[in-house]
Amino acid sequence: MMVDVKVIEDIAGMRSYVSGIKARGDTIGLVPTMGYLHEGHLSLMRKAGELSDHVVISIFVNPTQFGPNEDLDRYPRDFERDLDLASSVGVECIFHPRSQDIYPKGYATYIHVEGLSSVLCGVSRPTHFRGVATVVAKLFNIVEPDIAVFGEKDYQQLVIIRRMVADLNMKVKIVGYPIVREKDGLAMSSRNRYLSQQERKKATVLSRALKRAEDMFYNGERDASAIREALVEMIMGEDGCNIDYVEIVDADDLSRLRTINRKAVIALAVNIGKARLIDNTILDPSL
Amino acid sequence: MMVDVKVIEDIAGMRSYVSGIKARGDTIGLVPTMGYLHEGHLSLMRKAGELSDHVVISIFVNPTQFGPNEDLDRYPRDFERDLDLASSVGVECIFHPRSQDIYPKGYATYIHVEGLSSVLCGVSRPTHFRGVATVVAKLFNIVEPDIAVFGEKDYQQLVIIRRMVADLNMKVKIVGYPIVREKDGLAMSSRNRYLSQQERKKATVLSRALKRAEDMFYNGERDASAIREALVEMIMGEDGCNIDYVEIVDADDLSRLRTINRKAVIALAVNIGKARLIDNTILDPSL
Repeated sequence: MMVDVKVIEDIAGMRSYVSGIKARGDTIGLVPTMGYLHEGHLSLMRKAGELSDHVVISIFVNPTQFGPNEDLDRYPRDFERDLDLASSVGVECIFHPRSQDIYPKGYATYIHVEGLSSVLCGVSRPTHFRGVATVVAKLFNIVEPDIAVFGEKDYQQLVIIRRMVADLNMKVKIVGYPIVREKDGLAMSSRNRYLSQQERKKATVLSRALKRAEDMFYNGERDASAIREALVEMIMGEDGCNIDYVEIVDADDLSRLRTINRKAVIALAVNIGKARLIDNTILDPSL
Repeated sequence: MMVDVKVIEDIAGMRSYVSGIKARGDTIGLVPTMGYLHEGHLSLMRKAGELSDHVVISIFVNPTQFGPNEDLDRYPRDFERDLDLASSVGVECIFHPRSQDIYPKGYATYIHVEGLSSVLCGVSRPTHFRGVATVVAKLFNIVEPDIAVFGEKDYQQLVIIRRMVADLNMKVKIVGYPIVREKDGLAMSSRNRYLSQQERKKATVLSRALKRAEDMFYNGERDASAIREALVEMIMGEDGCNIDYVEIVDADDLSRLRTINRKAVIALAVNIGKARLIDNTILDPSL
């Protein structure tokens, strides 16, 4: 199915589009993205389509979620390709704002989800989740979605957004959707593009290590440090992989676990060449 | 006019009341308060009534806007009296939530309006406006008002809320309303109750000093420090008045002015006995 996708750049235009939908009593499903879409994003859009009448996506490379030495400037962009891909999964509207409209002169307001934002990726990216929470709140206020779909690949982001929505009494329902992987297991990410061919091969160690952890866990291992050490060893065994963190944490509050006696997530971040890759898997003792 | 005021304590109940109003296409005007209502509050409610179909007020002594050594515990409360007063000005509904419902276990999300929150009252009350912005955002998300009315007495709060609403793309329209004063000039405040009879008399120096500043200004004085010094001298002349700050700042961005060549506000905070009192007046060179 290829349909004409409406592209809206200005906030007022978006509000007017939204009020038309609301006036008809229809629902909106939002998928916020930074563009350079891949199958992972498309799966979120299909999910949004199942759950709502009109799928809106945003494409905005949000400057406030990048640190001073991060990849804001080189973050990959290809709007025409994104347009075709979005169209192919039935997206009705792309909100594609300009940075100066989202953060005009004098902009001063930031949303901080304490605790959850300073662990895992928050250690090496201290202002990242503040930027994410802020822009997502803005998108929610502009697009007024009934549901919004986020990938579990960015697991910490998902937890933080759920917390923000609950804490600030936002009306949107947050839906998480499983990681989509390449055939060889690498979690899909726009940043995979930074990998050389050789690095791309090495990068499969992340999903292989997580698979190893799952095997240990579902064979009865409940000691977090035993599983963690096996993972670290496997990743360190691959030349050129620099671990940022490998952690086993409570799936809801992200607190570190010694014993995996409740739903947990193994989350990791590894630098390979110019790419900082993240991946995770959920360990559920009730399964 | 005395009408039955609906009192709603739970968030779900409030949402259901709000959706009934929205379904009829009617508008809501919100006046957030901490209760212990006085004529200043009532003037805001009357204004909300002029501008909307249904006036909702909130009464919530918000713990996150009090510092550790401030007056949270002794803040005056009189719900029955508030109910009568609200009824007398046509308020239709009072949202009166419990603290544990507004800040449940695990609560972690705070909104910070940078810069504006760290000057004036923000110097001696560093977390105050973070608490204000956060609770106001929550109230907006729960009550979904079309307009919300705030007093100019809390001038810095008004500027911060306007900034937050613009920055986060909230749909509510913020309306400011002038200070209401006692016959002798003292700005109305629930905290005036902390004053002894003698302190109550001394406290009139604040409005007298501001009047003096207005006179200087409208007689042509544009040098901020000349006006400021006259005010400080007058207030210091009153025994037992301890100045927290007296500042002349830009009326929009609260930056300190040397020369009053644009709309400005003289804002002050003075401790008298157990009360920390604030007051302000606007100086407009275009008048």
